Amino acid sequence: MIQKKGSNAERDLVHRFFDAGWMAMRAAGSGSIGLPCPDVIAGNGSRRIVVECKALAADAKYLTKKEVAELLEFGRTFGAEPWIGIKFDRMGWRFLSCEDARATEKSMVISKEAAEARGLTFEELIEK
Amino acid sequence: MIQKKGSNAERDLVHRFFDAGWMAMRAAGSGSIGLPCPDVIAGNGSRRIVVECKALAADAKYLTKKEVAELLEFGRTFGAEPWIGIKFDRMGWRFLSCEDARATEKSMVISKEAAEARGLTFEELIEK
Repeated sequence: MIQKKGSNAERDLVHRFFDAGWMAMRAAGSGSIGLPCPDVIAGNGSRRIVVECKALAADAKYLTKKEVAELLEFGRTFGAEPWIGIKFDRMGWRFLSCEDARATEKSMVISKEAAEARGLTFEELIEK
Repeated sequence: MIQKKGSNAERDLVHRFFDAGWMAMRAAGSGSIGLPCPDVIAGNGSRRIVVECKALAADAKYLTKKEVAELLEFGRTFGAEPWIGIKFDRMGWRFLSCEDARATEKSMVISKEAAEARGLTFEELIEK
């Protein structure tokens, strides 16, 4: 169920990019091939964006330091902006840069308050 | 089985891009969301490539006109070079432009001979 919720959120994000005139795709088997792989990639001819998505029901989202490091590595090598896409229940998407994730020893935490305060909405992200 | 063979070929292609210093990802549920979606996307900071993969055991590979049209549309809008990636048994990958597919009424056909004669090898593709 948790996995399904995450996939549905990613599909929702892909559709938003399409509706905005971008092309986008979800990654297959994220992580399972042992190589860096963000969840969604999108482009519009001038910008490319890779997104690590977190969309489970919880008051804070946790990313491992490995997830963030791989997002940065993928973005740098591919040539795409790395973003963390967060979707809390009863709140739309918010997009944060990797610096906005607060690091603990093994993971990065993003609270709902931080996402609302510092995150970009989808419209802000694509008009950036 | 046919689907598995196709997925394995796509994974092989993703690994080749990584080994060459690119970043790459396979698309999830290609086609299932009703939006244009190539099988593999790769980038190295200066070039982006999208690939529609055909890797089943047969002497000729068939692409529907819709597959080719969507590959072109995705590449144009995203900002990536569209390539058809063909893998015949006992022959490595060959990469053809969409113009190299011979069109019949509903589909495009690529023979093993045409792939060998006109297709680029993986090394030629990434050094192009």
